[in-house]
Amino acid sequence: MKVQSNTSKFYIPQLKLNSGETLDDVEVAYTTYGILSESGDNAILIFHALTGSHMLAGQFTKNDNPGIPWNEELEIGWWSDFVGPNKIIDTNKYFVVCANYIGGCYGSTGPNSKNPITDESYNFDFPLISFKDIEVSQKLLLDHLGVVSLEAVIGPSIGGLMALEFCTLYPSYVNKLISISSGYKLSTIQLLHNLEQAYILDLSKDSKFRKQEYLSLARMIAHKTYISLELLSKRAKNESLYDDDLIEGFLISPQESYMMHQGEKFIERFTPESYSSIIKGWQNFNLEMESISKLKNINTLVISVDSDVCFYPEEQREFVSILENCKVQTTYRMIESTKGHDSFLLEPELFKEIIENFI
Amino acid sequence: MKVQSNTSKFYIPQLKLNSGETLDDVEVAYTTYGILSESGDNAILIFHALTGSHMLAGQFTKNDNPGIPWNEELEIGWWSDFVGPNKIIDTNKYFVVCANYIGGCYGSTGPNSKNPITDESYNFDFPLISFKDIEVSQKLLLDHLGVVSLEAVIGPSIGGLMALEFCTLYPSYVNKLISISSGYKLSTIQLLHNLEQAYILDLSKDSKFRKQEYLSLARMIAHKTYISLELLSKRAKNESLYDDDLIEGFLISPQESYMMHQGEKFIERFTPESYSSIIKGWQNFNLEMESISKLKNINTLVISVDSDVCFYPEEQREFVSILENCKVQTTYRMIESTKGHDSFLLEPELFKEIIENFI
Repeated sequence: MKVQSNTSKFYIPQLKLNSGETLDDVEVAYTTYGILSESGDNAILIFHALTGSHMLAGQFTKNDNPGIPWNEELEIGWWSDFVGPNKIIDTNKYFVVCANYIGGCYGSTGPNSKNPITDESYNFDFPLISFKDIEVSQKLLLDHLGVVSLEAVIGPSIGGLMALEFCTLYPSYVNKLISISSGYKLSTIQLLHNLEQAYILDLSKDSKFRKQEYLSLARMIAHKTYISLELLSKRAKNESLYDDDLIEGFLISPQESYMMHQGEKFIERFTPESYSSIIKGWQNFNLEMESISKLKNINTLVISVDSDVCFYPEEQREFVSILENCKVQTTYRMIESTKGHDSFLLEPELFKEIIENFI
Repeated sequence: MKVQSNTSKFYIPQLKLNSGETLDDVEVAYTTYGILSESGDNAILIFHALTGSHMLAGQFTKNDNPGIPWNEELEIGWWSDFVGPNKIIDTNKYFVVCANYIGGCYGSTGPNSKNPITDESYNFDFPLISFKDIEVSQKLLLDHLGVVSLEAVIGPSIGGLMALEFCTLYPSYVNKLISISSGYKLSTIQLLHNLEQAYILDLSKDSKFRKQEYLSLARMIAHKTYISLELLSKRAKNESLYDDDLIEGFLISPQESYMMHQGEKFIERFTPESYSSIIKGWQNFNLEMESISKLKNINTLVISVDSDVCFYPEEQREFVSILENCKVQTTYRMIESTKGHDSFLLEPELFKEIIENFI
């Protein structure tokens, strides 16, 4: 009995977007793990992070996922340590679903897909996708799969924003919400980081010969918020030094080389147009505070990491206060880690007991 | 008796640079305030911040400063509230000197100057200028002006790094050092911000039609560290909204408009090549810790601002510890302000007593 799927595709003939536009011939790439119960109520939906994918757990190959940007980082599912038989999210018990965002570049319809009207790729002309559109597309997928209600919806990073908004859209459909290293709004520093990246991607249209490097630089700007800078200073290895003179007077220190390397790896596995699409969705995320009161029958777990400089713990504490004010049953846990925002990818042992005790 | 100069120029036929290269026909643009005593020992040297200038106090006009990028921000000296007769740095008592950095764009030899060999502007081929070169050029200027010893050397922001290094180069020449919102080394976050900006400026070489915008974006990246983001969120005005659609899906919030406006104003008064030159110097700043012990006869004042996210107070406290370990007589003051790094430009009243009591 096979309980882990390769990438499957779900088809939506026409999706009315939050912007008022419509998107035709929409495909949603997804994976499932475990078996849906006959009553259809043992499912868990997991939203991925900004540049994550539906390739959640287990092994994946470029051959099985043709036509998408690829490097070795994609060969192991991003939450393999969390999701599987007898793991933190136990696929012997739960039917787990994870889907690539519309606007993404891992198989769901996005800027690099063909516009059925022009028969050319949308590229930067892809319509504005809001997080709400992504959430709606995933609800349609769950309906299609026969999921009657969700035991839990889980999201780390911007996936947590979507998990939260999903609950406000379908409050009676969800029992539990887990928000990890995430929040409830866009902070000013995120707004500015997103703007910088969007501006760089916009300038890539002006490029003569170096288009890909703009995406690399955008990634570097974001990446500094995913890691602990203190650790970076200590760990960046001298071996990783660049010896070309791409930027004269720079790239002398191992920290600079580390960041350049992060950017260069990223352009192998993402596209500027998809990156721009998802950042746009994030920049326009705006949850009305009243809608949080709709969560009052949803048991909620909020997890922060003390060294996170992408979604700061202060924001999670604010979020918890808002939940409590709305009479939502809420558990808050702060994890002590030196790994920063990316802790949820790197340190399953810190999350294990907290999540297991909750679901 | 005129005690405030307009821009003067000091000529150095050949400057041997720290890199081993030489720079010919070097000019240093400077201003002086007050009168040098007969004994030549009442002088104060002030190093400016990254995009500051020698136009320290009083009024300046474009006509009196031909050939340099200009906007109205330059019409009032950047430290007019601090420097003048009966002001915090009292020009009735002191002879104050401020010079534009070599590599800058306000009259000192820099990337936009003509290379005497090719008779064309250096632009991005200007040699690597280290902060040490700038300090040496200013010592030559002081010698030329007849300054026998300095009552004090003062620097805010990266000017503080130069003030510090100047003291290690000429320890018996200086009585007092004032380091404001500065430090003693390059922090990892500064290193990464500088790298991002340098990369953007490097990409401007790839531009088809939008060269100036790269500098604007670089400034936006830096500017977010100069202000208090909390205040930005509160104060950014709705009126400042952009209504063009330069970046689709962005520039909707007043905070984004504010940042774009900061970038756009900056390109009027700076050049990409000079910006790149000075950031390079900063990125390569590397003071040997042993040299700090040379300050043991220099009375030192270190001032930090609690909301500073460019030079964090933690760094100033570390700096103070190092000074104390080296037996340097040190006073440390932390200012409480909501204005962040730019407090030293905006809030003279917070600095007044601290500086007056010290000098």
